[in-house]
Amino acid sequence: MSKSRMNRAERAQLAMMLEVSAFPKPGNVDRCHDYETTRLEHFLASTILVRPALERAERREGTAGDLILEAVELTSTHAGGNTHFGAFILLIPLILGGDIAGAERVVRETTVDDAVLFYEAFGKTRVRVLSEHELDIHDPRAVEEIRGRGMTLYDVMLYSAKNDMVAREWINGFQLTRKGADLLKLSGCGSGAIVEAFIELLSSEPDTFVIKKHGRDTAGEVMQKAREVRDGLRDISAFDQECIDAGINPGSIADIIIASIYIALGEGWAWDC
Amino acid sequence: MSKSRMNRAERAQLAMMLEVSAFPKPGNVDRCHDYETTRLEHFLASTILVRPALERAERREGTAGDLILEAVELTSTHAGGNTHFGAFILLIPLILGGDIAGAERVVRETTVDDAVLFYEAFGKTRVRVLSEHELDIHDPRAVEEIRGRGMTLYDVMLYSAKNDMVAREWINGFQLTRKGADLLKLSGCGSGAIVEAFIELLSSEPDTFVIKKHGRDTAGEVMQKAREVRDGLRDISAFDQECIDAGINPGSIADIIIASIYIALGEGWAWDC
Repeated sequence: MSKSRMNRAERAQLAMMLEVSAFPKPGNVDRCHDYETTRLEHFLASTILVRPALERAERREGTAGDLILEAVELTSTHAGGNTHFGAFILLIPLILGGDIAGAERVVRETTVDDAVLFYEAFGKTRVRVLSEHELDIHDPRAVEEIRGRGMTLYDVMLYSAKNDMVAREWINGFQLTRKGADLLKLSGCGSGAIVEAFIELLSSEPDTFVIKKHGRDTAGEVMQKAREVRDGLRDISAFDQECIDAGINPGSIADIIIASIYIALGEGWAWDC
Repeated sequence: MSKSRMNRAERAQLAMMLEVSAFPKPGNVDRCHDYETTRLEHFLASTILVRPALERAERREGTAGDLILEAVELTSTHAGGNTHFGAFILLIPLILGGDIAGAERVVRETTVDDAVLFYEAFGKTRVRVLSEHELDIHDPRAVEEIRGRGMTLYDVMLYSAKNDMVAREWINGFQLTRKGADLLKLSGCGSGAIVEAFIELLSSEPDTFVIKKHGRDTAGEVMQKAREVRDGLRDISAFDQECIDAGINPGSIADIIIASIYIALGEGWAWDC
């Protein structure tokens, strides 16, 4: 089997594995850093256990909501909590659609049932909820409201796009996914390129997961410091430690980088150098 | 999906992932150490890419030689060289047979064709050859000789058992695999237990991969130092660094530990604590 014959499911698994193995990725779980309750092994176990959902997506046996739910269920068997919810939101349509243009069609064709299944998946993660304005799956009225309003999963993402950069990818044609893939290819090969692309995205976009957890000011400071790292004015390891000490983990940009690696691998980018 | 419903292929993949992620494992690639040409990502990529062979073993579609060859082929697409040849020699019969007793039946029933396929697999790895007495696959007479002598794959392992502790597992009822699994369960859970079991095996058995590469004296010294680590008389990280600096990697014991983790997981040992 040559690299080019790698199937989509394997490509997605490799992307998940490569992202978590690359280091230092300031603030996130990486090869050299765990959080107390979520460790490297949890991320890697999810990478292995999710395969049936990814393969089903590759065979187009299922819809986005259904497959995101299955991916979350398969990877919720360990104690590490949610590891890849955001990544699945991006990978599932990318696998279903084949490429970014195909994924754009997939997301626009999602249904109200997809939205309901997505909320079921959401309820099985421990993802931070933004505010009382979010539709809360633990509130029995949420599903009722989705059905009542006739919201598709695309509509849910549209509704969330303002405050969630992963949801925004569904709406804007996977812009940051595309940008990350281009950055990877510009940065050469292997895990060094992943770190560079991560720092570049972190420099240019406030991470919405950081905003939800720590507010806009902190997210802005992280962006500024990432710029200084990129420009050689700040040490990446010190920045990493600072983020970890403060519990600042730019998890949404990490999710997008996984999608970027998936795309870049499909376009011949070499992880192995 | 509950943990107990994990299938055999996934269990083997988790075992491979957990072994390479555990650290410090003196001398071997682990979460914190690469060798120049073989890195953590190579081991993890093999863990992902081998799945079709493991699933075929689970469905009993194939024989030991055939499946070991497929496993090697699937994991030889990256530049990291052979990562898990020894592990596959143990995992494939364990998956085919279901448990150690089943694996013992599987290995005794191997055929001459299995031996020929195994030598084909061997030729695709860059595994260190012991001496001029080995049957060398690059020598066209080797296959002829296997056929001429009517050697089954079990016979090949019997022939190699004196100098190769992985081959010896086929002959002695997977003794060290069993011992490693028992050690894991005695040592508690998670990666700490993997490191403890690894040190304990390293203390009690000379690693035949180290013998082939560095000779018996070095292997004996490694064993003695591992005993001192076990007894709290030597620092594990310093020992790890010393091994790495000297290129001493006890790879056969690492292969056996993978098989031990596979067995222990099937008996309820918790990787996740």
